Amino acid sequence: MSNGYWKDLQEKMEHWLDDALPEADVPQKSIFTAMRYSLMDGGKRIRPMLVLEFCRMCGGDAEVAAPFACAVEMIHTYSLIHDDLPCMDNSDLRRGRPSNHKVFGEASALLAGDGLLTAAFETMLSEQSIRRAGADRAARAAGILASAAGAYGMVGGQVLDLAAEGKQVSLEYLEAMDHRKTGALIIASAKMGCAVAGAEPDKLDAAERYASALGLAFQIQDDILDVTSTPEELGKTVGGDAENEKSTYVSLLGLDKAREQVALLTAQAKDALAVFGDQADALRELADSLASRAK
Amino acid sequence: MSNGYWKDLQEKMEHWLDDALPEADVPQKSIFTAMRYSLMDGGKRIRPMLVLEFCRMCGGDAEVAAPFACAVEMIHTYSLIHDDLPCMDNSDLRRGRPSNHKVFGEASALLAGDGLLTAAFETMLSEQSIRRAGADRAARAAGILASAAGAYGMVGGQVLDLAAEGKQVSLEYLEAMDHRKTGALIIASAKMGCAVAGAEPDKLDAAERYASALGLAFQIQDDILDVTSTPEELGKTVGGDAENEKSTYVSLLGLDKAREQVALLTAQAKDALAVFGDQADALRELADSLASRAK
Repeated sequence: MSNGYWKDLQEKMEHWLDDALPEADVPQKSIFTAMRYSLMDGGKRIRPMLVLEFCRMCGGDAEVAAPFACAVEMIHTYSLIHDDLPCMDNSDLRRGRPSNHKVFGEASALLAGDGLLTAAFETMLSEQSIRRAGADRAARAAGILASAAGAYGMVGGQVLDLAAEGKQVSLEYLEAMDHRKTGALIIASAKMGCAVAGAEPDKLDAAERYASALGLAFQIQDDILDVTSTPEELGKTVGGDAENEKSTYVSLLGLDKAREQVALLTAQAKDALAVFGDQADALRELADSLASRAK
Repeated sequence: MSNGYWKDLQEKMEHWLDDALPEADVPQKSIFTAMRYSLMDGGKRIRPMLVLEFCRMCGGDAEVAAPFACAVEMIHTYSLIHDDLPCMDNSDLRRGRPSNHKVFGEASALLAGDGLLTAAFETMLSEQSIRRAGADRAARAAGILASAAGAYGMVGGQVLDLAAEGKQVSLEYLEAMDHRKTGALIIASAKMGCAVAGAEPDKLDAAERYASALGLAFQIQDDILDVTSTPEELGKTVGGDAENEKSTYVSLLGLDKAREQVALLTAQAKDALAVFGDQADALRELADSLASRAK
């Protein structure tokens, strides 16, 4: 399993995203420009990759999974746009470029976020998507994403993040927060991939265990990079956590323990893939590469 | 068909909404309080009523329609919360009470809106909702709402509204804007009611024609009330359109012509209901009462 495998998949993903949210010849076309500015910005596409890979490993078709892969990236992107707004993190930079509201203004960025969140469901529940996946799988997969993205999941994690601002919080709190803020969407991606392929419950369980460990490792690695990286390497502001007096895995565990945790969780994630045999080699590689990433 | 009919339906609706989004015993419970503050505030519930009535007239069950009725009210409520934010209309008052961000702060109001938008899809695509409606009808009805709420629909209307701020616009522009901003969700409500009941295309067409005329009449009446009403009667700031130099039906047509239009559209709306016979008496009455409302 080479790096080329992920690159090919990523390229396909860019085409699917481009198709799912094209520029539109409507009076309100400016909103499509704002939505696409953030959606088509060369993110890592980790969540969509999980949808596609778990679907493939469960015997499903990539064309069936594509709208669901696009949807999770739309939801992830909307959350970044809203998170960057002045009333939230007030971030000027995102993936090496000015954040959405710095380019389009606050009101348009707010609406671009709302539009992307809604577009996720438009995409999953289009006539074509329902026909390809079958209504039962489409409805259930969209339901998985809705639950993960909402007030019990990602939005709830944002709330805990806000409440923790300027405060020292416990490791337990931090894990509860990240499980919602980052973990929920990553877990949903893996489960949606299984769901659109009509997989058995043991595979959904394995997907959840893999993604849960991967998600936490990813977040800890994020915290590590915030103290060890430069804005040039990372393409975004660094040191922001310490500046905002945010508790992080690094501030709570120390850098060495945090790195140990990443290694441990990465091993757990790979173990969870046993049921998929060597079909899961790409996902094992993904776990390793995320643990060692520098951006 | 008496006023008591609507009151009974409205009361049922309050219970369904209350059940669909209860207070939650989770660390992020504050977000549920903020979401419920705006959702359970005694709005007119016109959109949910359309879902329920069209479902009933097409032979469907109210319990099946309830999640979809709740969903459209959640979407409507989120749009009001985001619309009131300082970067948008900057409104302090909504339905006679401080707007969401005045009570909970901007960041929480932003997230409460995001949470409600997502909760709409959680509600429509819950296990129970899918089982009751059947996956095919659930997926298609949720798809109708997603399309209406997104960048081609309601969010697109907000964009046109923003672009028109402080400018004189044409009647054509105003209609294109309102068709998206207000009309899309009202039309979707009527169509969802038909869709969850598995209605024939001619009924979906009639629903669309009724709701389209009703929606425009409603918006013109809103503009009329903005110049003829008091904050006490209306429960919100009045005169804001003139103050913000917004073009309205009243500023473009004059008060008399605007009132004529409301009467004409109300008649059109009622005519569209012919296919439903006397089953549609409540909706005829609704059209009349919206045209003559004082708040």
